[in-house]
Amino acid sequence: MRYPEPILKLIENFTRLPGVGPKTASRLAFFVLKMNEDHVLEFAKALVNAKRNLFYCSVCGHITDNDPCYICSDTSRDKSKICVVEQPKDVIAMENMRGFNGLYHVLHGAISPIEGISPEDIRIPDLLKRAQDESIKEIILATNPNIEGETTAMYILRLMKGTDLSITRIAHGLPVGGDLEYADEVTLSKAFEGRREL
Amino acid sequence: MRYPEPILKLIENFTRLPGVGPKTASRLAFFVLKMNEDHVLEFAKALVNAKRNLFYCSVCGHITDNDPCYICSDTSRDKSKICVVEQPKDVIAMENMRGFNGLYHVLHGAISPIEGISPEDIRIPDLLKRAQDESIKEIILATNPNIEGETTAMYILRLMKGTDLSITRIAHGLPVGGDLEYADEVTLSKAFEGRREL
Repeated sequence: MRYPEPILKLIENFTRLPGVGPKTASRLAFFVLKMNEDHVLEFAKALVNAKRNLFYCSVCGHITDNDPCYICSDTSRDKSKICVVEQPKDVIAMENMRGFNGLYHVLHGAISPIEGISPEDIRIPDLLKRAQDESIKEIILATNPNIEGETTAMYILRLMKGTDLSITRIAHGLPVGGDLEYADEVTLSKAFEGRREL
Repeated sequence: MRYPEPILKLIENFTRLPGVGPKTASRLAFFVLKMNEDHVLEFAKALVNAKRNLFYCSVCGHITDNDPCYICSDTSRDKSKICVVEQPKDVIAMENMRGFNGLYHVLHGAISPIEGISPEDIRIPDLLKRAQDESIKEIILATNPNIEGETTAMYILRLMKGTDLSITRIAHGLPVGGDLEYADEVTLSKAFEGRREL
């Protein structure tokens, strides 16, 4: 036996986390042993609480502990715009940007024939239902700039064409602070295509 | 409010871990939400168990859930050799090597005038007591190859000189698989000094 059982168990649990290999897990486990006991108890409680008390908003699909979520139930928000994202994390990223005051729709995935994910597997039918509300004016497609995200955006665009809704896609281009020289060709060509008059 | 409270709390707890910044903490927290509930409960239990049921062996200072620890109480081990290390993690590293079958002595630190750590703050007095046992023949100094570790090794060597004990220091040199070209000068000079006839 190379480790006492309780630390072995803790290491095993840490290795279940993404990006945590056996070395990191062991480092984290030994750190826990040196932590203040109150902090360890709080950590354990936070794990269970987060798992038990969070669910998805019945309106937008964002992660929440109240239904509807704090964004959907915020009366100060602009209810004419819906920003469509793939994951709850993307809502957080958009909110951190602080530039958008509308509502969200979390798809919980993207269309991927390879992984067998069809439009019905993600929350596209729910989006169509929400879009029928007359107060909605704009649908902003903020799925990821990769094959699955683009496919999903194009699919939604096609479904909604012909309605009065304005369907927009977030811009692709060079990341701010990036270097033209190191940009990949696809990004560069997207940035070129998307050029705007100054 | 940008996150629901339970996830905020979980992120906050993850950021207390070493090497976990806000981005990683948020990624880990979202991962926990997608984990199987049994695994989350097991993780929480493992944290509390490790913190509550582990302590330091009264003989060697290694981390254990039984006193004396599994190494000190293993009758098949060579009780004439004590390997002195700084941390319980170092015991694990030595055990993983599988080349040593003696006992350990964990100092729980190294002498560091800068951090105000004197020989009495680490388990050097305990080591002296253990070394008085006549069955002990060799003390292997396996403190880290840095200033504090070297200072500690030299200090112990001076204390024990004049006794019949053989005091050895683990070798410094090039790491196996390393590249001479990229070795730092101190390591290279230690490797050169430590050269052996073939």
